[in-house]
Amino acid sequence: MKKLLLLTFAAAVASQFCLAQTNEPADDWKPATSNQPGKQFPQVNSEGRVRARIVAPQAQSVVLEFLGGAKYPLTKGDDGAWIGSTRPQDEGFHYYQLVIDGAGVPDPGSMYFYGGGRWGSGVEIPAEDQDVYALKNVPHGQLRDVFYFSKTSNSNRHCVVYTPPDYDRDTSRRFPVLYLQHGMGEDETGWGNQGHANLIMDNLLAEGKTKPFIIVMENGGGMGGPRRGVAAAGATPAGATNSTPAPGGRGMFNFSAFERVLIDDLIPWVDSTYRTMADQPNRAMAGLSMGGMQTRAITLANLDKFSNIGVFSGGSIALTNITDLAAFKQKIKLVFVSYGSREVDPNRRSDTGRGPFGGDPQANTEALKQAGINSHYYVSPKTAHEWQSWRRSLHQFAPLLFQD
Amino acid sequence: MKKLLLLTFAAAVASQFCLAQTNEPADDWKPATSNQPGKQFPQVNSEGRVRARIVAPQAQSVVLEFLGGAKYPLTKGDDGAWIGSTRPQDEGFHYYQLVIDGAGVPDPGSMYFYGGGRWGSGVEIPAEDQDVYALKNVPHGQLRDVFYFSKTSNSNRHCVVYTPPDYDRDTSRRFPVLYLQHGMGEDETGWGNQGHANLIMDNLLAEGKTKPFIIVMENGGGMGGPRRGVAAAGATPAGATNSTPAPGGRGMFNFSAFERVLIDDLIPWVDSTYRTMADQPNRAMAGLSMGGMQTRAITLANLDKFSNIGVFSGGSIALTNITDLAAFKQKIKLVFVSYGSREVDPNRRSDTGRGPFGGDPQANTEALKQAGINSHYYVSPKTAHEWQSWRRSLHQFAPLLFQD
Repeated sequence: MKKLLLLTFAAAVASQFCLAQTNEPADDWKPATSNQPGKQFPQVNSEGRVRARIVAPQAQSVVLEFLGGAKYPLTKGDDGAWIGSTRPQDEGFHYYQLVIDGAGVPDPGSMYFYGGGRWGSGVEIPAEDQDVYALKNVPHGQLRDVFYFSKTSNSNRHCVVYTPPDYDRDTSRRFPVLYLQHGMGEDETGWGNQGHANLIMDNLLAEGKTKPFIIVMENGGGMGGPRRGVAAAGATPAGATNSTPAPGGRGMFNFSAFERVLIDDLIPWVDSTYRTMADQPNRAMAGLSMGGMQTRAITLANLDKFSNIGVFSGGSIALTNITDLAAFKQKIKLVFVSYGSREVDPNRRSDTGRGPFGGDPQANTEALKQAGINSHYYVSPKTAHEWQSWRRSLHQFAPLLFQD
Repeated sequence: MKKLLLLTFAAAVASQFCLAQTNEPADDWKPATSNQPGKQFPQVNSEGRVRARIVAPQAQSVVLEFLGGAKYPLTKGDDGAWIGSTRPQDEGFHYYQLVIDGAGVPDPGSMYFYGGGRWGSGVEIPAEDQDVYALKNVPHGQLRDVFYFSKTSNSNRHCVVYTPPDYDRDTSRRFPVLYLQHGMGEDETGWGNQGHANLIMDNLLAEGKTKPFIIVMENGGGMGGPRRGVAAAGATPAGATNSTPAPGGRGMFNFSAFERVLIDDLIPWVDSTYRTMADQPNRAMAGLSMGGMQTRAITLANLDKFSNIGVFSGGSIALTNITDLAAFKQKIKLVFVSYGSREVDPNRRSDTGRGPFGGDPQANTEALKQAGINSHYYVSPKTAHEWQSWRRSLHQFAPLLFQD
């Protein structure tokens, strides 16, 4: 008996030891690429862990909290600095904040991004395919901060416009336009700052893999939603770590005000300001999460305005959504639907009881294809309802655009 | 004796009472215009006070701290929120942070700006002349985020380019260029975000008060200084509340690396990318604080490149700085020098023992004028070494540009 106890004890020690060994983070920390210039923290390691540090000598507690809720308490050192690391995170971009004695604040080490209804911290986990959005020595397009006056909202509205590298050099040339929308709790800055849409396009163009086109990013949530500061209660903000979009679909959103801004004000302003190809065959719309829902609702109601459609983590288009299939087949040249794998994995879905709404996106997209519509379905490996899924979606989507 | 004591006591009470009365802030608080969308705090009142609030139930102390050092402790309420207000501040923009139990962090209510060597909080105090940089329903130019490759630094460098409203509509027209530099601890985003250079130009153009020109804003400090995160020790960052620039002049800075980037890489890239008037008469340089010092050093060494010069809160040009007066008179069509009144007020200066370096800027500028050079000296009323001085300087400077 005594021997057995001893063995059990030894096994327990060994198992503890092994646990400690396997839980020890790899000691190859580097400052995150999403940090402010010169800031050493937060750091990331080769396992995708995040290590935060902040000097707060009088604090009682400091916690690193991801948007979506995962919390990691930091530990105070003798130097008055709190430090701690997280479990391995998915590749790509995650919103987070520090909570110091109950106050949720941005990490002074990170750059700031608009998401979750606030400007706040984000951290970049290196990804296998980060070359896709790396800053390279290739011709660069421009991201333009623009104000335009909207009669519908009777206000100056702000948007961001990407023009391809050739735009300023060859002033005789005209370009197609993609209207590209952010998610709930985000704004018109998201696709540039978090999404690196400009770098994705610059790199694709340098490799000759896409046609050049203009991208217009508007604050489509700004009609009364997230632009007021906080995401609507009960719904999941875009980019929440390890979460999926709230069920319900477009019924819980009203996009008619934004539809009017887009159709009556923004498109005419863009077509009169930029050298666009101002017709339906050369106009696309896409968006992520809520922006995908907007895209579905607005394109289906305006087949004479858009010919190419992209819905990223925002549902899909079922045959039953299409009123006039013949008209749709004639006018729509591309339907692209995508999700992060963690959103559509039934095992992951069963954890939360949530998944893509409006039916199985793959089956819906396959049905469109069977009906003769140029349709594509893409799943981003090992990512959730977050920006890495959407960067990859744009990277897959862009080469398919304006091919007809 | 007893009567005297009583009288003294009564006087003391009365004086306390009066003090309390006069110190009571005006109760007309409004969310600062520099806040994040929908955020109620920080607030400002008609006296120019700032009122901050943050929920931090477990904190031991919360302090509002302006860049430059002024500190205002907040007080904890029963609801776990800390709240407090400052003394009246100068009109315009001020950098600040919250210090929670010793941790300096951005206020989650404010927008974030790059200054003092970090992205952090700023607060806008309404100004008498805020109409100058108000967002109006006038034709708007564009602020363009641009990467270009610099052979000198062997890297992709970032700059911000303002193109006037007409730029995209009339593609046959060419424009003069102003190279406009930020201060130490700031970067190429400062003139747009904090300075509202785009809105100042849009409004001046709408009133017909300036010629249209392109503005190029580069990260001139990024050659080894502020872009690494922290301002150089011992020097005063641009925008520090109630402070003046460190003495010493250009001797403490080395601008030769930036000069090479500007002359060899940036100007040729701008002239080949934008529809510029690519000659000396149509090229200007100006800057604030360290950017003013760069302007002085680089223009004096490159009279064949620049014809118009602006130095804001960054010293002045003395006759003794000019090697060849005849050449200078022939080539330089404008010298503009400005300061905030609190920088040049001898009473204020004696508080800190510091003031404009390199001699009296007004006397120096007057001497240039006497020598036959088109010279202007401007003092911004009731402002210090901060952005309101520089917004006003640009507003005064722009109409004088490219008149010859």
